[in-house]
Amino acid sequence: MRILGVDSGLHITGWGIVDYDGLHLKYVAHGTIVSSASEEIGWRLGNIFKGLADVIEEYSPLEAGIEDTFVNKNPFSSLKLGMARGAAICCAGILGLKISEYTPNKIKKSVVGTGHATKEQISIMVQKLLNCGSVKLDAADALAVAICHAHHKMLYRVTK
Amino acid sequence: MRILGVDSGLHITGWGIVDYDGLHLKYVAHGTIVSSASEEIGWRLGNIFKGLADVIEEYSPLEAGIEDTFVNKNPFSSLKLGMARGAAICCAGILGLKISEYTPNKIKKSVVGTGHATKEQISIMVQKLLNCGSVKLDAADALAVAICHAHHKMLYRVTK
Repeated sequence: MRILGVDSGLHITGWGIVDYDGLHLKYVAHGTIVSSASEEIGWRLGNIFKGLADVIEEYSPLEAGIEDTFVNKNPFSSLKLGMARGAAICCAGILGLKISEYTPNKIKKSVVGTGHATKEQISIMVQKLLNCGSVKLDAADALAVAICHAHHKMLYRVTK
Repeated sequence: MRILGVDSGLHITGWGIVDYDGLHLKYVAHGTIVSSASEEIGWRLGNIFKGLADVIEEYSPLEAGIEDTFVNKNPFSSLKLGMARGAAICCAGILGLKISEYTPNKIKKSVVGTGHATKEQISIMVQKLLNCGSVKLDAADALAVAICHAHHKMLYRVTK
């Protein structure tokens, strides 16, 4: 099964694709969708939607894991994060992907083994687990979500 | 010019269309896009996107006014509101509409004359200003955003 992982943000949205056969993980691709704060909000959110739609069209993932955005103490920041997340989820939803949400702690535990890992630690572990080259931090987070979703599916199968 | 007003929410998203010739406002249409909490989040956000896309395709508005969502003290509520808003704005953005955002106070002042009007007062004033029949509260809010956008355009023209 091909899995899309997404780490959504208004400035940078990371995405990563992995294949999972029930036992092994295989790296497929990763990247980022970037927009500048000087652009209009409609363009920025549309850019996230279209960027992810292109990725889904190119790689045809069946399911998506999305980071359950860190809820900032500042409601304005939460609102902005929510908007980026809304654009990403509605894109995956419209294109028929089954979407699962994971908290940052669950993702870190799944990849590094502890819920308090740094972004750098996540990036190193993602590269080791997927045996892939250097990965930018935001895309590493997205690949980590995809790995977390694969682990979750395996766990579900084992405990069923 | 044809204007789309949107009052976005995860449960109910209201929309309203008005025509504005620089002096007069004319009611065109209104409605709501509804989803149940029992549906998956991807479906709910996709439903807002597709619902608004249908409205834009049917009525061809050139510009959109969107309520600058009330920032709840609860960051989780802000996140949810932000997600619905993200789906609505990215739809309007992708379909090429120029988007303006207005605070609830600005919208109320524009329609009722005070920043502290109730939803019922807004609905009554919207019906009077547009000379249209009964309008549901969420759609009345959306028509109020469209009226606010028209007023803002007039003010911009007069003061330019």
